[in-house]
Amino acid sequence: MARVNENYAKLPGSYLFAEIARRTSAYAEAHPEAKLIKMGIGDVTRPLVPAVVEAMHAAVDDLATSERFHGYGPEQGYDFLREAIAQHDFRARGVEIAVDEIFVSDGAKSDCGNIGDILALDNVVAVCDPVYPVYVDSNAMSGRAGDYDAENERWTDIVYMPTTAENGFCPEFPAEKADVIYLCSPNNPTGTVLNREQLSAWVDYANENGSIIMFDAAYERFIVEEGVPHSIFEIPGARTCAIEFRSFSKTAGFTGARCGYTVVPKELERDGQSLNAMWNRRQTTKFNGASYVIQRGAAAIYTPEGARQIEETLEYYRNNARVIKEGLEAAGFEVYGAVNSPYVWCKTPEGVGSWEFFTKLLEEANVITTPGAGFGPHGEGYVRLTAFGDADATVEAVERIRAM
Amino acid sequence: MARVNENYAKLPGSYLFAEIARRTSAYAEAHPEAKLIKMGIGDVTRPLVPAVVEAMHAAVDDLATSERFHGYGPEQGYDFLREAIAQHDFRARGVEIAVDEIFVSDGAKSDCGNIGDILALDNVVAVCDPVYPVYVDSNAMSGRAGDYDAENERWTDIVYMPTTAENGFCPEFPAEKADVIYLCSPNNPTGTVLNREQLSAWVDYANENGSIIMFDAAYERFIVEEGVPHSIFEIPGARTCAIEFRSFSKTAGFTGARCGYTVVPKELERDGQSLNAMWNRRQTTKFNGASYVIQRGAAAIYTPEGARQIEETLEYYRNNARVIKEGLEAAGFEVYGAVNSPYVWCKTPEGVGSWEFFTKLLEEANVITTPGAGFGPHGEGYVRLTAFGDADATVEAVERIRAM
Repeated sequence: MARVNENYAKLPGSYLFAEIARRTSAYAEAHPEAKLIKMGIGDVTRPLVPAVVEAMHAAVDDLATSERFHGYGPEQGYDFLREAIAQHDFRARGVEIAVDEIFVSDGAKSDCGNIGDILALDNVVAVCDPVYPVYVDSNAMSGRAGDYDAENERWTDIVYMPTTAENGFCPEFPAEKADVIYLCSPNNPTGTVLNREQLSAWVDYANENGSIIMFDAAYERFIVEEGVPHSIFEIPGARTCAIEFRSFSKTAGFTGARCGYTVVPKELERDGQSLNAMWNRRQTTKFNGASYVIQRGAAAIYTPEGARQIEETLEYYRNNARVIKEGLEAAGFEVYGAVNSPYVWCKTPEGVGSWEFFTKLLEEANVITTPGAGFGPHGEGYVRLTAFGDADATVEAVERIRAM
Repeated sequence: MARVNENYAKLPGSYLFAEIARRTSAYAEAHPEAKLIKMGIGDVTRPLVPAVVEAMHAAVDDLATSERFHGYGPEQGYDFLREAIAQHDFRARGVEIAVDEIFVSDGAKSDCGNIGDILALDNVVAVCDPVYPVYVDSNAMSGRAGDYDAENERWTDIVYMPTTAENGFCPEFPAEKADVIYLCSPNNPTGTVLNREQLSAWVDYANENGSIIMFDAAYERFIVEEGVPHSIFEIPGARTCAIEFRSFSKTAGFTGARCGYTVVPKELERDGQSLNAMWNRRQTTKFNGASYVIQRGAAAIYTPEGARQIEETLEYYRNNARVIKEGLEAAGFEVYGAVNSPYVWCKTPEGVGSWEFFTKLLEEANVITTPGAGFGPHGEGYVRLTAFGDADATVEAVERIRAM
């Protein structure tokens, strides 16, 4: 008799966005005249830039001819893309990453979810609280999380590191030794960043303890402040303790096109094994490369034209973030993130829970947000707003909130 | 100290295609005048058909506009594609598959590799010998294969089912009870198919033993003979014991574009859990949907025009397969497969090993094949030839072999 992976039955439902949708449509039904503005989900809305569109069309035309047809590509990604990444995302910032340390994929969510394949099941995993749920759920599925304690909204074997205004949104080192540590900067959901000193301290901790840092830099392109690390590999010592995840989703509007990449340095070894070689084996066995068409599109963002064009789109979203932050602050709210990030993390008024504040914003401003509690217990007392919407709608949303 | 998945260190190198490439380039260097014809690797060469190209261009243009932009899509695939699949791949053949039993992905290799995520680690896995290596390697990585016995070229905990001319290329039921059974029809590498009676017997076995059949139907479109099942779900009882993998790679030339799908019926339950719900949870947690552009391209093969066009390409390859089969038979070889498959499985002459015959074909006919031994011990005594090449080159290759 075949048996299933028993860990799946332990997973609580993932009701956050479903519950938001339910409450929103109940309100919309009762108030058909209301013009709702969505600032809840972290999905982009601006079109692909012309350079990317042109490159994708050209790639489709390649596949339409015998002479330029591309069948199976390298599972690790085409060199035209990996070389552009090494040059522009790293060497241009003074970081040397070899082409064979870069693994192109169909997106950072796949890589964040699959990376556990190469790790032992008895590692102790630490995550920030609040947190992007994929880190936790993927480890729970493979059995590293223990059991779910519904009352405390926590897994028994996961180490949760509170990440709140009180500690400047930089988690403290856990009391227990953590083997695998997920860090995300710029952070989803808080929109805050780790500075060089904070990230260096984490790299030192990892090297001292033999831990591996899973560094999620999906929102890297939103960094505008000088001195904020764009990559963990800017930090000395990171090559022996870190894996970095990058995405074209927010960088270039690829949430629907699908492309990302993961950097696994060759110095990263545990139990005498090279994690670069292990990830290479995992990808060549269980993945067949990202689409040629999409990789050509991704490579176009590294041309001078493409780079300028995506910068315009990024600036559009950054401006939305500024509008939200300044508007909410003017309305008297305590606001975090937004500066180096498309996410605005807004403290709810004293004594108001995050679901309660979500409802208030929905009903009084017709603005849809995400309750912070949905990202973990320490997200309680906050809501997340995103800067990915239409610029005019963003201005109007802020005006409505100020008028509340 | 973080620890790695110890099973990776047990994996033998995957040297088959590397060794073929090494021997081939050594020969080419020594004989620069030789015109080598590649019939080794199972990758398509014909361009995407016009209907697919047009649909992909239109989809790229969608992403280039605010109004028709598509961000995150459903992780399970867009309904426009899932509905076309349900209608044309199943309902048109009298098989009812619900849209929410279809999970679109970036390819069958990913799905075959990842499906183990939802299964317990102590299941006994059975595979055919010879076999597509992904079934074995992905289970070895997760610890279901035990240890590798290099001398016998076998994993200690995998059940190998010889699949040879002697048993008509239909594996016998294993002596041990097998919990998870991988079947592939039309088969890679042998090119043979399971008929309705054979497949029914396997479905009955699985239902009696609570086993799950992983049915790989990636080459389904090559079936031309009446009565050969295109889907395991044509067999009564399969909905309680089978998962089916499909691919657009060979169907429509998507090896570089990347798209496939997996069918998990809602009746399939083990340990009181729905495998459909589990796979849905796996995909929504660790995958973010196939590219919108590529899904639009895939959907175009279900239009009358697209269907006619891919049929032309398929017929081009089928004709190559016929040319190879008839030519080799005329030359006195014993040949299997080829009829319902792009693969031709050719018995080596009495007493000649598969690597030896590979070398003979390389040196005397300048034709590159794949030695059967590369697919498992019972592939010894065969070579695989593929029908995915240029039609003229295929004719020439066969003439050269006949002239040997």
